[in-house]
Amino acid sequence: MLFPFSLRIFRSLSAAVVVLAGGSAALIFAAGGDESSQAQIAYPAGYRQWVHVKSGIIGSEFPMEPERGIHHVYANQTALTGFESGTFEDGSVLVYDLVSLSEKGGISTEGARRRIDVMVKDSKLYADNGGWRFGRFMADDHEHNIMTPDLHQVCFQCHEKQKAHGFVFSEFRK
Amino acid sequence: MLFPFSLRIFRSLSAAVVVLAGGSAALIFAAGGDESSQAQIAYPAGYRQWVHVKSGIIGSEFPMEPERGIHHVYANQTALTGFESGTFEDGSVLVYDLVSLSEKGGISTEGARRRIDVMVKDSKLYADNGGWRFGRFMADDHEHNIMTPDLHQVCFQCHEKQKAHGFVFSEFRK
Repeated sequence: MLFPFSLRIFRSLSAAVVVLAGGSAALIFAAGGDESSQAQIAYPAGYRQWVHVKSGIIGSEFPMEPERGIHHVYANQTALTGFESGTFEDGSVLVYDLVSLSEKGGISTEGARRRIDVMVKDSKLYADNGGWRFGRFMADDHEHNIMTPDLHQVCFQCHEKQKAHGFVFSEFRK
Repeated sequence: MLFPFSLRIFRSLSAAVVVLAGGSAALIFAAGGDESSQAQIAYPAGYRQWVHVKSGIIGSEFPMEPERGIHHVYANQTALTGFESGTFEDGSVLVYDLVSLSEKGGISTEGARRRIDVMVKDSKLYADNGGWRFGRFMADDHEHNIMTPDLHQVCFQCHEKQKAHGFVFSEFRK
């Protein structure tokens, strides 16, 4: 969940493929340049109507300011089945939605979106990363996946600790 | 959102009616005794897979301890349409899910459920309350709606301030 200090917009998009994942469509771009070896994922349209997995708060005591706020995790139907079965099938998509908070009189309310992080499962396309590919979109920008190879490595190295749980940290809060 | 200081379990349930509300079923009981004039609502089964409307946090500075925690609002499909159209049709169900929080190192995580509050819209059955009926289920108890006439009055008197917004406080966070 580290913040990217250099924002890079992927160009040279060479192809777009729509993957139907349990009724939800995840648009995947095959990127050119340094990222040509792996497809870049596009904005997960409609995720706010997916199932809400859990939430958490990163407060003012946490040293990294860009991580602060309230976050919600959403799952498409394929990923939701993964929480139940323990296996995330191809087509699983998870979204980490980070929203700013403002406090008054002990009550904190949601404000603007800070960013979303996305995880898409394709065991063949992303075989080198446990079958997952990560993406990041700042604020309400739906167009520019700012994931870089370095940041992707940081994401994966942390999620790799959760290999026994399909590389996923969250558990579904019943 | 006031806490009921006397917990009363409704008995003498005389009838149960299943209302199909936009694909989601809200079970309604016609209660006997003092509450015989209005049907009591039952636990909104499956609401955790409904759409997540918004969240908020009531922290340690807030004077009423039973209200503290993180809360999430969920809407069934009929209520979701209401957020878009501005009119909550009969069959709309909203759930206020209050969950305890524990903090460590600036990171707050969700714990046990404290209670859920439920709003069900039926403009004929609940005509005296703007078409809404409120219910409350403590912790993970799915069986006992502990709403009392006094608490219901408190709920409605507050929600009445939102008459211009269909008696609903929440707005859908996009």
